[in-house]
Amino acid sequence: MGLMKKYVKKDFPVWKVRRFIEPGPIVLVSSAWKGETNIMTMGWHMIMEFQPSLIGCYIWTQNHSFEMIRKSKECVINVPTVDIASTVVSIGNSSGRDIDKFEAFHLTPLPAQKVSAPLIQECYANFECKLIDSSLINKYSLFIFEVVKAHVATSPKFPQTIHYRGDGLFMVSGPTVSKYRKKFKPENL
Amino acid sequence: MGLMKKYVKKDFPVWKVRRFIEPGPIVLVSSAWKGETNIMTMGWHMIMEFQPSLIGCYIWTQNHSFEMIRKSKECVINVPTVDIASTVVSIGNSSGRDIDKFEAFHLTPLPAQKVSAPLIQECYANFECKLIDSSLINKYSLFIFEVVKAHVATSPKFPQTIHYRGDGLFMVSGPTVSKYRKKFKPENL
Repeated sequence: MGLMKKYVKKDFPVWKVRRFIEPGPIVLVSSAWKGETNIMTMGWHMIMEFQPSLIGCYIWTQNHSFEMIRKSKECVINVPTVDIASTVVSIGNSSGRDIDKFEAFHLTPLPAQKVSAPLIQECYANFECKLIDSSLINKYSLFIFEVVKAHVATSPKFPQTIHYRGDGLFMVSGPTVSKYRKKFKPENL
Repeated sequence: MGLMKKYVKKDFPVWKVRRFIEPGPIVLVSSAWKGETNIMTMGWHMIMEFQPSLIGCYIWTQNHSFEMIRKSKECVINVPTVDIASTVVSIGNSSGRDIDKFEAFHLTPLPAQKVSAPLIQECYANFECKLIDSSLINKYSLFIFEVVKAHVATSPKFPQTIHYRGDGLFMVSGPTVSKYRKKFKPENL
């Protein structure tokens, strides 16, 4: 556990967080409510707008985080990398009802700037989020968040993220290719 | 163009399509309306449920496909692989107002079973979709589809998909790892 990366991060434009969410990585969602913190593993999310910076997230009612996020109306979406894949799986296969996940998994909570939920230092990026639309929670378990502050590691340029294939299998992100960039219309970049 | 793959596919359980959508690939959405067909490139989508098999998709109002899909209430979500990445980019940087994309990009439309929109033969997987909730289109450009029929290539087991990083850059899916599978609770697999 002492080998986990302590990424150095800098402020990042919130309208650009799609660069890290749109490729579809598994993320860790941290929350805080009444003195308690928690972390959940999440694979069902999508960019819904970039100005304002909106992310839609499916959070199952049975997750301990569900009520914490619904009541606090805040969370942090953290992007983990493959070096902590084992921890990501353990987080997804345990419950905050039983354990303090920051302590159990030796993760470092750092204070956020605009929300009370903590940032996870060992993740590549941290997006502070406010719940801006709760009207679809009952019907679809869909939380619509606005990213109000973003922190992204200064290096490497592209994180090696993990993507869930179902059945316990993960795809690890591969090479980034730039050769198609010249085929884009400038207004589409 | 003669080198494009003609994947051989078989029926696939609709509740398992998350295995190909959750990792976050760029997809091609095909549609049909009043004798016309079209294809658009889409990166903003998420699994919203697996039984029934629901996928939420952001479709921009300015896309030519927007009205075709809204009116026909149907589409096919096709999963392309890296061998046709150049075509995927060209599809995303042209409009069905100006060209017939199947013809222009030498793609083969195949009849679907449950919708009028065509399958794209050169894609790894094809998911026939019905629009089951249009109530969020005006506010969020969010279309909620149910996958009613799925076709997936028999080989390879895991497609080499492309994932959009923004700014004209793509991540190509990397290796699939199984070593974390033993850490899952059986009910979470």
